[in-house]
Amino acid sequence: MKFSDLVHKLGNAATNSSLSINDNDPDIAGVAAIDKAILHQLSYAEVGKYAAKVATTGASALILPANPTLQTNATERGIAWVEVGNPRLAFAQAIALFYQPFKPARSVHPTAVIDPSAQLGQNVAIGAHVVIGASVKLGNDVIIHPNVVIYPESQIGDRTVLHANCSIQERTQIGADCMIHCGAVIGSEGFGFVPTREGWLKMEQSGYTVLEDGVEVGANSNIDRPAVGETRVGRNTKIDNLVQIGHGCQIGHGCAFAAHVGLAGGTTIGNRVILAGQVGVGNEITIGDGAIVSAKAGVTQDVPAGRTVSGYPAVDHKVFLKSSILYSRLSEMYQAIKKLQKRLDEK
Amino acid sequence: MKFSDLVHKLGNAATNSSLSINDNDPDIAGVAAIDKAILHQLSYAEVGKYAAKVATTGASALILPANPTLQTNATERGIAWVEVGNPRLAFAQAIALFYQPFKPARSVHPTAVIDPSAQLGQNVAIGAHVVIGASVKLGNDVIIHPNVVIYPESQIGDRTVLHANCSIQERTQIGADCMIHCGAVIGSEGFGFVPTREGWLKMEQSGYTVLEDGVEVGANSNIDRPAVGETRVGRNTKIDNLVQIGHGCQIGHGCAFAAHVGLAGGTTIGNRVILAGQVGVGNEITIGDGAIVSAKAGVTQDVPAGRTVSGYPAVDHKVFLKSSILYSRLSEMYQAIKKLQKRLDEK
Amino acid sequence: MKFSDLVHKLGNAATNSSLSINDNDPDIAGVAAIDKAILHQLSYAEVGKYAAKVATTGASALILPANPTLQTNATERGIAWVEVGNPRLAFAQAIALFYQPFKPARSVHPTAVIDPSAQLGQNVAIGAHVVIGASVKLGNDVIIHPNVVIYPESQIGDRTVLHANCSIQERTQIGADCMIHCGAVIGSEGFGFVPTREGWLKMEQSGYTVLEDGVEVGANSNIDRPAVGETRVGRNTKIDNLVQIGHGCQIGHGCAFAAHVGLAGGTTIGNRVILAGQVGVGNEITIGDGAIVSAKAGVTQDVPAGRTVSGYPAVDHKVFLKSSILYSRLSEMYQAIKKLQKRLDEK
Repeated sequence: MKFSDLVHKLGNAATNSSLSINDNDPDIAGVAAIDKAILHQLSYAEVGKYAAKVATTGASALILPANPTLQTNATERGIAWVEVGNPRLAFAQAIALFYQPFKPARSVHPTAVIDPSAQLGQNVAIGAHVVIGASVKLGNDVIIHPNVVIYPESQIGDRTVLHANCSIQERTQIGADCMIHCGAVIGSEGFGFVPTREGWLKMEQSGYTVLEDGVEVGANSNIDRPAVGETRVGRNTKIDNLVQIGHGCQIGHGCAFAAHVGLAGGTTIGNRVILAGQVGVGNEITIGDGAIVSAKAGVTQDVPAGRTVSGYPAVDHKVFLKSSILYSRLSEMYQAIKKLQKRLDEK
Repeated sequence: MKFSDLVHKLGNAATNSSLSINDNDPDIAGVAAIDKAILHQLSYAEVGKYAAKVATTGASALILPANPTLQTNATERGIAWVEVGNPRLAFAQAIALFYQPFKPARSVHPTAVIDPSAQLGQNVAIGAHVVIGASVKLGNDVIIHPNVVIYPESQIGDRTVLHANCSIQERTQIGADCMIHCGAVIGSEGFGFVPTREGWLKMEQSGYTVLEDGVEVGANSNIDRPAVGETRVGRNTKIDNLVQIGHGCQIGHGCAFAAHVGLAGGTTIGNRVILAGQVGVGNEITIGDGAIVSAKAGVTQDVPAGRTVSGYPAVDHKVFLKSSILYSRLSEMYQAIKKLQKRLDEK
Repeated sequence: MKFSDLVHKLGNAATNSSLSINDNDPDIAGVAAIDKAILHQLSYAEVGKYAAKVATTGASALILPANPTLQTNATERGIAWVEVGNPRLAFAQAIALFYQPFKPARSVHPTAVIDPSAQLGQNVAIGAHVVIGASVKLGNDVIIHPNVVIYPESQIGDRTVLHANCSIQERTQIGADCMIHCGAVIGSEGFGFVPTREGWLKMEQSGYTVLEDGVEVGANSNIDRPAVGETRVGRNTKIDNLVQIGHGCQIGHGCAFAAHVGLAGGTTIGNRVILAGQVGVGNEITIGDGAIVSAKAGVTQDVPAGRTVSGYPAVDHKVFLKSSILYSRLSEMYQAIKKLQKRLDEK
């Protein structure tokens, strides 16, 4: 499609936008990263990392921010461009214009094994070899890919997608518009053992896990259920791959947890909290709204709202930055101390 | 049931206990955490974290330790209570009184594919789409949830439970009373490659994995088999989710490993060792009986029995505590050194 | 077989080798680690860790390096031995002489669900309950274990093995001679969300994942696909269990990544790079050819070719070694500073 038509379709993201199509209005056949894009492809740039690539990209058109330098560079190279407030957002919308995601047939595969007491909504897709237990309830337009297992008494909300080989254990409540990726396990038993003189005594995990609407859980991630009560993940919280959410955690809405994050049991996470990759959070810790925990940090005490913390044990990010630079200079500090001692001895 | 009846049923845990039912003997309909409990629910408290919550809980009854303050607080608020030596243990037993865990039907689902040479014990439950390979032996009362795959020549002991979508690779020996959670992989090939001039040469992993009785393996955890010999996990050792046990590890009994723990190949772990979340242990390391490794620590040399270590590289926990506090004050230390140098220059 | 026959079969590895069979030429019935080996077993030793065990091993024969001490020790104990350039490599070849790995039947199990548009090569093995989507292409001699799911439009090269319960998502291209272990997920959606005022907006992941020939992916590991373009893993790169490769990563050939490694989106890894266990690499980082990242390190800036880095944030390994020793002595350094201040005050 013509670039000008594409811009039209971007809708709100491109509203109030400037459009520069130079002498021509290029045909756009697809989208690509700015350093990979070729003729007839659209890409985007932002001030910072990708800015320099405007000078070398092979793209025929770009989505740009309100930045005169980038725009002039593009114009000089004969690249058509459109200005938008949030280029990455507009690029996401442009991808969706070209991409036809795979959608399985809206039918129940004859090899699926569905308990007669399960209730299925309208227009569901249930793949081959899916197993659905007693008293499970599926909403409308639910998509279940092959080889998924849903244990008894679980509920899956409208339009939610369960990818292949994932396991939903008993009594789990998954809201609408959620996506559970391949191999994820929701509602598994919390790691609850009581130390006794005879060894570990298992505490039955009689609780359940709740995912509110719009939650996404990455491939091979786990969200455990607790001994009593519930583990809860708030609406629109996004969880990456290989993440462990322990029993009884209470997680707010709009959070993002990167891969390999681990939350011990009973942690409380506020809204819009960001946990970077390989972060760990200790038992019963509370992290306030809007806090950010840097990659690999280990949180051992509560984090107030809005704070950024880093390191293990996690401290204020600015303190960590200073200390981590000096960590590399410990040898120099040590030598300086030795030298001071010597100088003082000689005085 | 009446609280006094419930206490009766707790049996040994409540033996020699004091019971205070105040004016009434409340009906108990369920169990809950102390900060979530409502009328007709039972909870528990311990000295420390939950103690303050006795003043605000909505529970009708509590399991308490031998602590006069907690007991008086409960009595003053009209909460019935029982004193026991180990409140958490008694609470675990109380949960079991109310909880009816899901148990699949003791039958072999017609969609399961079972090699004719496999031997099945009595009273087994084999779910839909399970695949059982040649020469596999299942004990009595084994429960296999849907979509599990058992490779040839593996053995599963009496009463062991395999949850959905887990994979048991060839020659694995799993004892009695084990539980393998969803998506776990037992007996997978060790990561054994020999560097050669032509690149990585694969070392065949001809060994096997042994789990002794009472072992629990969390969701999406892996226990690899070695090139020769065995990987062994001792009886009653409990392993949480997303844990990696490398090829040839020898693990004692009664250990507990939290989520995201990773053991490189050939490590030797004693009995009753506790590895907290995200701990890593290097190749061929030995950790002695009763040692504790704090969260996120990386163990690079042997740990004697009974020791607690922390940090990376892991050092004695007390040393780590002091150093981690000073890490936050490195900037201050650096400034102090600079100032000393200046003062000395000026003298 | 006789030890001398075995040495003969080792072929190239044992070429130009010295062979010492003492008075006898022992029958070798199997292979074992040097500290576990018994009569009629073969093992190996290298200078360093296993050297001392030559004095105590029960093995009847050993593969040894060109080390007179080890060879004399073996001879004195009546152990037959052969000298080779790379004992570990020759031992790997000896294992293969005795080991008959499990190979499933070359047939298509009747319970497999295969889309009519899928193309199957010759001599493939497709296990029970496998699901193969539309337009999938399988090469010759491909082995697919039970309960694997392959989404539409994926390609699997000749002789590649997919283990049980793994998931290959849409458009994935897997080369020849690859091995994907149980529960792994290839081609899953990248964690791509754009922050907007209304919350996280999902960026469609329209790209795909490519594994070149000879790649191995461990159990429950994930390799995500990107929003646009490809995620690529170079030939003969070996990836251990529970590893996360983010969207759009470009990984060279001959690398080895240990368990729990996590690469954020858009990282570029050269050839023959080694990432030890639990390493994390940040967004858009580049790591040069032959670099080594020590266990648990977190890479926050580019690493030049050939460099070894450690710690978080990762620094040159030698700097890290010095600093990590001094970290344990921070308290001593702090006291020294205090003492210096006092001495200076008193002057």
